[in-house]
Amino acid sequence: MWRELLPVGRYDAGGGYRRHAWNSADAECRAWFAEQARARGLALEVDRNGNQWAWWGDPAAGDAVVTGSHLDSVPDGGAYDGPLGVVAALTAVDVLRERGRRPARPVGVVNFADEEGARFGVACTGSRLAAGALAPDRARALTDADGVRLGDAMERAGHDPYAIGPDATRLARIGAFVELHIEQGRHLGDHPVGVAAAIWPHGRWRFDFHGEANHAGTTRLADRRDPMLGYAAAVLAAREQARRRGSLATFGRVAVQPGGTNAIASLVRGWLDCRAPDEATLDATVAAIHRAAEEQTAPERVRVAVERESYTPVVDFDGPLRDRLAGVIGAATGREVPVLPTGAGHDAGILSAAVPTAMLFVRNPTGVSHSPYEAAEEPDCLAGAAALADVLEELACS
Amino acid sequence: MWRELLPVGRYDAGGGYRRHAWNSADAECRAWFAEQARARGLALEVDRNGNQWAWWGDPAAGDAVVTGSHLDSVPDGGAYDGPLGVVAALTAVDVLRERGRRPARPVGVVNFADEEGARFGVACTGSRLAAGALAPDRARALTDADGVRLGDAMERAGHDPYAIGPDATRLARIGAFVELHIEQGRHLGDHPVGVAAAIWPHGRWRFDFHGEANHAGTTRLADRRDPMLGYAAAVLAAREQARRRGSLATFGRVAVQPGGTNAIASLVRGWLDCRAPDEATLDATVAAIHRAAEEQTAPERVRVAVERESYTPVVDFDGPLRDRLAGVIGAATGREVPVLPTGAGHDAGILSAAVPTAMLFVRNPTGVSHSPYEAAEEPDCLAGAAALADVLEELACS
Repeated sequence: MWRELLPVGRYDAGGGYRRHAWNSADAECRAWFAEQARARGLALEVDRNGNQWAWWGDPAAGDAVVTGSHLDSVPDGGAYDGPLGVVAALTAVDVLRERGRRPARPVGVVNFADEEGARFGVACTGSRLAAGALAPDRARALTDADGVRLGDAMERAGHDPYAIGPDATRLARIGAFVELHIEQGRHLGDHPVGVAAAIWPHGRWRFDFHGEANHAGTTRLADRRDPMLGYAAAVLAAREQARRRGSLATFGRVAVQPGGTNAIASLVRGWLDCRAPDEATLDATVAAIHRAAEEQTAPERVRVAVERESYTPVVDFDGPLRDRLAGVIGAATGREVPVLPTGAGHDAGILSAAVPTAMLFVRNPTGVSHSPYEAAEEPDCLAGAAALADVLEELACS
Repeated sequence: MWRELLPVGRYDAGGGYRRHAWNSADAECRAWFAEQARARGLALEVDRNGNQWAWWGDPAAGDAVVTGSHLDSVPDGGAYDGPLGVVAALTAVDVLRERGRRPARPVGVVNFADEEGARFGVACTGSRLAAGALAPDRARALTDADGVRLGDAMERAGHDPYAIGPDATRLARIGAFVELHIEQGRHLGDHPVGVAAAIWPHGRWRFDFHGEANHAGTTRLADRRDPMLGYAAAVLAAREQARRRGSLATFGRVAVQPGGTNAIASLVRGWLDCRAPDEATLDATVAAIHRAAEEQTAPERVRVAVERESYTPVVDFDGPLRDRLAGVIGAATGREVPVLPTGAGHDAGILSAAVPTAMLFVRNPTGVSHSPYEAAEEPDCLAGAAALADVLEELACS
């Protein structure tokens, strides 16, 4: 099953994945999911927001136990972020059947659409729309780097963009959602599997540095209004403030106008990704980076404007569900299971507002994520699928 | 004449110019030049490297006096950088005719192709090829941001890319070359016109910072290999080293891979433009910036590789010619003419290796260059054209 999915949307052999919402690689991944459902006799549903569901039992019965993740990737992403949760979910269904168990509650496997937001800029689009956390008009109008609107891309992929929107009835049928995911750091140590405590609050801020274009070879230093210096100061301040405050702060994207080698820039636009254990620390980190940028730019007569492009408050996963998962896995492995926070957003974080939700993490030996070097050992993946099977058995069969 | 040329290749009313080598705006500029030659009864020649020449008299007679500049622009450039020198040259021919003068030596007006190097990355392509300072194979293989090769772009514009190369015979016919240019700083003070002493040595260096792509929301600071920090340190070091050493050092262009907001970059590539009064200072400035970048990147386990993409040694303009220009203009205006160095490269700098060469500068009240805010007062432009006419009369008619 895993080997069939591996080559889809991979850029060059051994390179990263470019499975972006509604592109051809995404369509292949979705066809693969449909085939996996068919092969297991699971009923396939595609909801109004393009999320795929494979059902064992009738979801209309309600109080369903759902597991799954997403199949799309960041640009040049790794093989595990998303797909591991879907493959583990299907494997867990297989394991339950091998154990001869029949669930008392409907069991669903889900593939959420457009989790990474790599193409249209908003993460978790499929789950956000379902949970009413993203307005359909805004979603349809999002554009990719080529100016293609999300609505048009969806339509070309065979989905009605005017059907998208809140799906409270569907979510109300779910009694519990568990997402398994590769860990995106190295906090698990010698444990193959862990349970998520919370998702750090996080957001994206756009820093615009407005200077004045000029000739790099003739403009006296005193006459310059070079916005690149403010951007550089913000990049270094981001690391320094994150270190001081126990946050994470990153500039990984920058655009420059006019962008000529022999021209002082008129505009440097940098995007800050910032995350922290709590919202007060998050806000303080961003404010300190903003201040550091202003201190640098004032004497240079460069203006800095900061706009918050997205913001996700802290997500505390359902306490009783988390404890039940930790109990089941601990009993099966004979060891206490690590319970850890994460800095990454997930569909589980979005759904947790409407549904009791939990997450399992599978160890990542390199800690690398959103990169072709993302890795997981096969025994750890199997341990994750086994833990997920134990969890489904506990939640759905007892 | 000036008003006809003004709208060509302008991006939005009042915006900057995008007259880039062999694009449609460039073709319009070239057609305008041909029409100006025709209207004056000047014989039009297009040489093997795409440079346009308009001749008053027969260039085969030799010992010609040539003036002119270029019509292409940097991205979002101003109206004067280049075109002022061409328009002033044509105006100077008109003035000589109004004065009833007939030159004893052939007089040429030139429009050099691709001076800014905005599209294919190498400045002064037309004059470099003619002077044998750029290999034809290398020139043909240069690519623009869309991957179009210079050879193909030339061919589409109707020029044979396999004809390009050294043009010693043509250059040997030139006895003196004088380029008039807008000043690109504010060194002229209350003088409308000045004479160039020298062009600072200058070059372009590509700084590649190799790190490791990773998830911005989950990777511990200690596990990061973020190349953006090294780039930021280099940007700040460039300003600091330039200030200390009396050089100019600028990062105005940067490219990031993968360039996602929530991804630590794997590669940050920044281009340094550096210029100094002498070559030792230039080399020392670049070396100090390189060292500062390495100091920052070593603990982050980021590798920095620096490649010199271009290098132009100091150009001292022809002393006797410079003194003769200063004498003629000083006699006409009754004031001593400022003689100043410049940090900018010009076709005149390239030609000076083969031909006695000089430059005139016209005052720029803002000092802004390579920007839509580049400016010149009309009386200063007319003073420049009059000075150029005096120079042509002195050189060609006496």
